[in-house]
Amino acid sequence: MDKNVIEKIEAIVGKDGYSIEPAVLYTYGFDASIFHNTPDMVVQPTSTEQVSEIMKVATEYKIPVTPRGSGTGLCGSAVPIQGGIVMAMQRMNKIRNISVEDLWVDVEAGCIYNDLNAELSKYGFFFPPSPGSAEACQVGGMVATNASGMRAVKYGATRDFVLGLTFVKADGEIVRCGTRTIKDSSGYQLARLLCGSEGTLGIITEITLKLTTKPKKSAYCLCGFENVEDAGRCISAIIAKPLIPASCELMDSVSITAVNKVRGNPLPDCGALCIVEVDGETDEVVDRDILIVEEVAKSVGAVSVTPTKDKDLINRWTDARKSVMTSLSALKPGCSSVSLADDMGVPVSQVPKAVKAFQEIADKYNVTVATYGHASDGNLHTKMVIDPTDKDEWERGVKAVDEIFDVCIELGGTVTGEHGVGISKAPNYMKERASELSSIRAIKKAMDPDNILNPGKLEQWEGSILRNLRYPCQGCM
Amino acid sequence: MDKNVIEKIEAIVGKDGYSIEPAVLYTYGFDASIFHNTPDMVVQPTSTEQVSEIMKVATEYKIPVTPRGSGTGLCGSAVPIQGGIVMAMQRMNKIRNISVEDLWVDVEAGCIYNDLNAELSKYGFFFPPSPGSAEACQVGGMVATNASGMRAVKYGATRDFVLGLTFVKADGEIVRCGTRTIKDSSGYQLARLLCGSEGTLGIITEITLKLTTKPKKSAYCLCGFENVEDAGRCISAIIAKPLIPASCELMDSVSITAVNKVRGNPLPDCGALCIVEVDGETDEVVDRDILIVEEVAKSVGAVSVTPTKDKDLINRWTDARKSVMTSLSALKPGCSSVSLADDMGVPVSQVPKAVKAFQEIADKYNVTVATYGHASDGNLHTKMVIDPTDKDEWERGVKAVDEIFDVCIELGGTVTGEHGVGISKAPNYMKERASELSSIRAIKKAMDPDNILNPGKLEQWEGSILRNLRYPCQGCM
Repeated sequence: MDKNVIEKIEAIVGKDGYSIEPAVLYTYGFDASIFHNTPDMVVQPTSTEQVSEIMKVATEYKIPVTPRGSGTGLCGSAVPIQGGIVMAMQRMNKIRNISVEDLWVDVEAGCIYNDLNAELSKYGFFFPPSPGSAEACQVGGMVATNASGMRAVKYGATRDFVLGLTFVKADGEIVRCGTRTIKDSSGYQLARLLCGSEGTLGIITEITLKLTTKPKKSAYCLCGFENVEDAGRCISAIIAKPLIPASCELMDSVSITAVNKVRGNPLPDCGALCIVEVDGETDEVVDRDILIVEEVAKSVGAVSVTPTKDKDLINRWTDARKSVMTSLSALKPGCSSVSLADDMGVPVSQVPKAVKAFQEIADKYNVTVATYGHASDGNLHTKMVIDPTDKDEWERGVKAVDEIFDVCIELGGTVTGEHGVGISKAPNYMKERASELSSIRAIKKAMDPDNILNPGKLEQWEGSILRNLRYPCQGCM
Repeated sequence: MDKNVIEKIEAIVGKDGYSIEPAVLYTYGFDASIFHNTPDMVVQPTSTEQVSEIMKVATEYKIPVTPRGSGTGLCGSAVPIQGGIVMAMQRMNKIRNISVEDLWVDVEAGCIYNDLNAELSKYGFFFPPSPGSAEACQVGGMVATNASGMRAVKYGATRDFVLGLTFVKADGEIVRCGTRTIKDSSGYQLARLLCGSEGTLGIITEITLKLTTKPKKSAYCLCGFENVEDAGRCISAIIAKPLIPASCELMDSVSITAVNKVRGNPLPDCGALCIVEVDGETDEVVDRDILIVEEVAKSVGAVSVTPTKDKDLINRWTDARKSVMTSLSALKPGCSSVSLADDMGVPVSQVPKAVKAFQEIADKYNVTVATYGHASDGNLHTKMVIDPTDKDEWERGVKAVDEIFDVCIELGGTVTGEHGVGISKAPNYMKERASELSSIRAIKKAMDPDNILNPGKLEQWEGSILRNLRYPCQGCM
């Protein structure tokens, strides 16, 4: 890194606000994806004004800048693929203001999701998306990837809660967009455009979120099935009642087997299962709704139906579900669960067809694929269990991934349900969004003419995704 | 209009698909705002492909194109201020597909809001925003203005329901953006950017909306107060419970007086009132919630509190509320209720302060201002009752409006709650969104380089809004 740049950055954030230590730089080259690339500098700003000053330096010296939340992303959005500066937001972690009667909260981008909800719960409110990384992930990262999780089907994804935000443009201009009112009409919804832009249009520094009342009661039902087709039919039938569950987690037999092996059989041994949650204002409502779930599950041939409000039992099920990703790495010796095609969305009615096709593709390429996810919004996670040092396994994996994504697009779905695009989805994202590309590219150029904001990602990706792998895989690019 | 253009348009839409008849053109120069300007041609396409072909002609000849729904807009968004082509969407009015189990519906832009909800209600779903013009307004217009209405506080504005849409760019390129899945993460949310863009970025032709289950039960409470301050405190206290009402309509004494005069005293005579609606899944829930409303209203000094589930009584109240805008025109002989500063949003806690300030400003400029609106999301409508042929009244009105908007911005609010920007809000929109302007202009230029899409509106407006008035006002520009 140029000495002048280092001096200028130090003048902005102080000695403690940045690092060029190789060990630190190496660490900040990762997120939770399969990729790695070492940046030239890590900067930890404490204010929007500092971010602005840093961006002015970056623009002057044409240095790539990659914003980073807690690094929990699974597709490489925060990996600094062209080096340069990683803008790490963890020191901007405050809840600035909760205005309960106005139904909004102001947070800094680095505010942790669970910390925010702990505070909101004091007033009877919550920020619902519930990403899997809730304990660690930052709100800014959630906005940047339009993240969501198991409660999106009923309550919406992050984009649906963003009333306004502050972001810094490539040239350092500070933009406050949107409002602190529940409604605002017309004018360009820049705040919504920034949702999911993964740091390619600006650095998000502060966010105003809409508050939602937290339901007072909930109940669960664990439904076991012979196969994923029956589970899928059950979910469709519940929604068509109409009953939108608070969450509905699907696991296929590979996922169930892995979890039962590693965690001491917390789940019934069956071909597929759904953990359905309903919520509402009174016991009467959730009792009525969980009865509907039971009846529907039985009517489509469930092999087991277990309704409950028992907290220990619910925790056992939800912990089991949360452990799928890590449990899969214990499925085969020498193998890891890797995030390839880890997060696609299909119309709910197409879930059975999608899961069946995934298995056929896995068989065709001789790779192990587990499927699970938030099935009531058609959001499926797949993990591939491979030897990550074996180039041939990676190559078969990527071929399988391309076909899996093709299936999703053919079924009217998307290659990116809630994790983002980053690197691992980029080629298929461009395929899915071919119609949008000219607009996307025009907007990117208008907002970041020097192309220094997280360059090389999304619509700019070129070539194979088997570049910059974090694993020691000989022969991989 | 150039003969070549007429020939080319006729070749696209046929003889019945366009008009250059002066009487027709004159009619299409209006919406429900105070403005008028006669276009050179009205085109009524029947497909996205026709829109695309028309835009290619418009680009070739650099003709301004202003898209138009049902013309129910109150701030001039659909008035063809620079002439050219009005693209009237009423022939594209189909519901294309309702996929109940996948929770989405596809509609053409010209689909009428109430028609859509009539169809959705068969399945237990609805599209909640509830604009005042529900019987006539088109979904495309709602998306283009990010419209909403009395149910936005609980269910969200139009932007929150748009999963994807098809739009045609200035050069005729057809873009399908977003998805038909409940979630999609990352990539630029073009569909959300188009929400509220008022035809300045593209012509919206088809929309995919997310479905929401319709609550089964509701109850109302009419609360009368001595003054607007007490009404405002009541609304804040209800929300802080927390209890988010399905709707909460505020009327000040000017509005109450006008309605009682015209409609035979349907409302209690008091200083301010709120019609609060709660909804939920069971009677138990709505009974509990309406009791909370009653108790809160009494605790802040309500002079009357009338809870009910009686449909006739509810219709009487809601019809009264809906008639405010027209009733105001009967308040003073020779005067009309005009849409100036007709739709601002402030934080809920600031409603009393805002309404008080509006009255002081009205007194200062000797104009009559009525305030009413969707108070639980801080969305206030004001109407000015003036002699629309009197230049002096207009000028005092505009001065009052500027100060009213200044108050809203100072209180942390917005000049545009749900009606759009159009012409009447444009100068104050630019003031409110000063921080966003460079980004907005860059995006507009990137998407519409020839500036033919609804030119001269939003951030492009110049000068006074007393241009192109629909009224015969001598001396107005």
